[in-house]
Amino acid sequence: MDTRPIGIFDSGMGGLTCVRQMIRLLPGEDIVYFGDTGRVPYGGRSAETIVRYARQDVAFLRSFDLKTIVIACGTVSTTALDVLERENDLPILGVVQPAAKAAVNTTKSGKIGVIGTKATIRSGAYEASIRALLPEAQLIAKACPLLVPLVEDGRVHRGDAVTERVVEEYLAPVKTAGVDTLVLGCTHYPLLMDVISDYMGTGVTLIDTGEEAARAAAALLFEQSQLNDPSRKGRRRYYASDSAADFAATAALFLGKDISDRVERVAIENY
Amino acid sequence: MDTRPIGIFDSGMGGLTCVRQMIRLLPGEDIVYFGDTGRVPYGGRSAETIVRYARQDVAFLRSFDLKTIVIACGTVSTTALDVLERENDLPILGVVQPAAKAAVNTTKSGKIGVIGTKATIRSGAYEASIRALLPEAQLIAKACPLLVPLVEDGRVHRGDAVTERVVEEYLAPVKTAGVDTLVLGCTHYPLLMDVISDYMGTGVTLIDTGEEAARAAAALLFEQSQLNDPSRKGRRRYYASDSAADFAATAALFLGKDISDRVERVAIENY
Repeated sequence: MDTRPIGIFDSGMGGLTCVRQMIRLLPGEDIVYFGDTGRVPYGGRSAETIVRYARQDVAFLRSFDLKTIVIACGTVSTTALDVLERENDLPILGVVQPAAKAAVNTTKSGKIGVIGTKATIRSGAYEASIRALLPEAQLIAKACPLLVPLVEDGRVHRGDAVTERVVEEYLAPVKTAGVDTLVLGCTHYPLLMDVISDYMGTGVTLIDTGEEAARAAAALLFEQSQLNDPSRKGRRRYYASDSAADFAATAALFLGKDISDRVERVAIENY
Repeated sequence: MDTRPIGIFDSGMGGLTCVRQMIRLLPGEDIVYFGDTGRVPYGGRSAETIVRYARQDVAFLRSFDLKTIVIACGTVSTTALDVLERENDLPILGVVQPAAKAAVNTTKSGKIGVIGTKATIRSGAYEASIRALLPEAQLIAKACPLLVPLVEDGRVHRGDAVTERVVEEYLAPVKTAGVDTLVLGCTHYPLLMDVISDYMGTGVTLIDTGEEAARAAAALLFEQSQLNDPSRKGRRRYYASDSAADFAATAALFLGKDISDRVERVAIENY
């Protein structure tokens, strides 16, 4: 047993899809979440800038004594994980490995689609991880730069004509390729699950990267005997680099509950 | 005559629409441009964060000895201009006043539309400035949060089904209101001029805020006898907070020329 908190961070709100799963799987764990809402989105920025921001995010989280860090952000996981692992002496989990494993375990045809931000698709990280596990996989990857702005704007629901049109445009080649598994390579995308699964149809399984990362963290902590008693009441604290009130208001959409008394602003540029 | 440069800044690339006009009107002037590409977009952030970023942008520009600063950003002009004016001892021009004047001089019916980011529309700054000049004006304002992401993604052309659908959705109430003048209250929007004017029709005049700000700066410098000889060859320098190469690549779209040898990265968080 190890009562130190788990640190989780994302470019903004998307990582809360991972927090939600983490709370469900590991109710006894303390969690410190940081969302870089003052600099979101990361996905269209250069690799150097993404690495610089990710280092600051980790430096802030490490002002707490943590047992592990989960990068609940597709862009950071694909672009900065190696640097962060090299520079830190605690386990750091990204979303790529767990999602690749889940995709390989799910697919029957070996045809797998991957969607993500520009930086994520440019990195080729999901493809490399999937190919390492299943060399004969047939992969199709597609950058979807407008999906994060749509989610951040709350336009996630069935019947939103713009969102449906954008999803259709991005996913048409993926659907045509006949994949049976689609990796949602950005933690914002699970909020678009309804619209994406309506378009892809029931024959395609969607891999929620935040959920898989939460599961991988649970497995790691279990192996290392670092899990808390699940009957313990875990404490969760949230930090954001833009307004705490704005964070709390949007967090309700992701977490399905009010956390406004547990959010603080942090000056991330000082880390 | 005053050969000190003019400083111009924006949250990202949008302010280059103002630079382009400035170069056309004032070819003899030196220009220092800063685009905060590492933290773009500003329009959905809180007022406190916008003010904090704007202060750093101005602090960087003031590391040069400038004769004036132009805020080529609708969000900063509507949310932080008063603070910046109070804290600085040189003339600072925003885009609101010049655009309000142009709108009032253009309208015949007194029905004027204003579009901008969430922060801009929340501020009410355009409406207040227009009403101060034309108290009987009938105004309709509309926040258009997806337009900046569309422009930043290069989706600005006629025939882009998503862009056309988004523009139609945002502008339908503005068109229905029967305006004869529409203020493009964000310096990104002139890149969508074709799509917007196709939808609004020939009876509606579009006000380009970057262009009006450039004209106002020219008038101010002329009045104060600070203009350079127009036959002088003005020197332009560009700074960005994300990759210089990425900035140069996108700048070509705004300026219609290659500036890759004149862009440098700046660590804006240190100002």
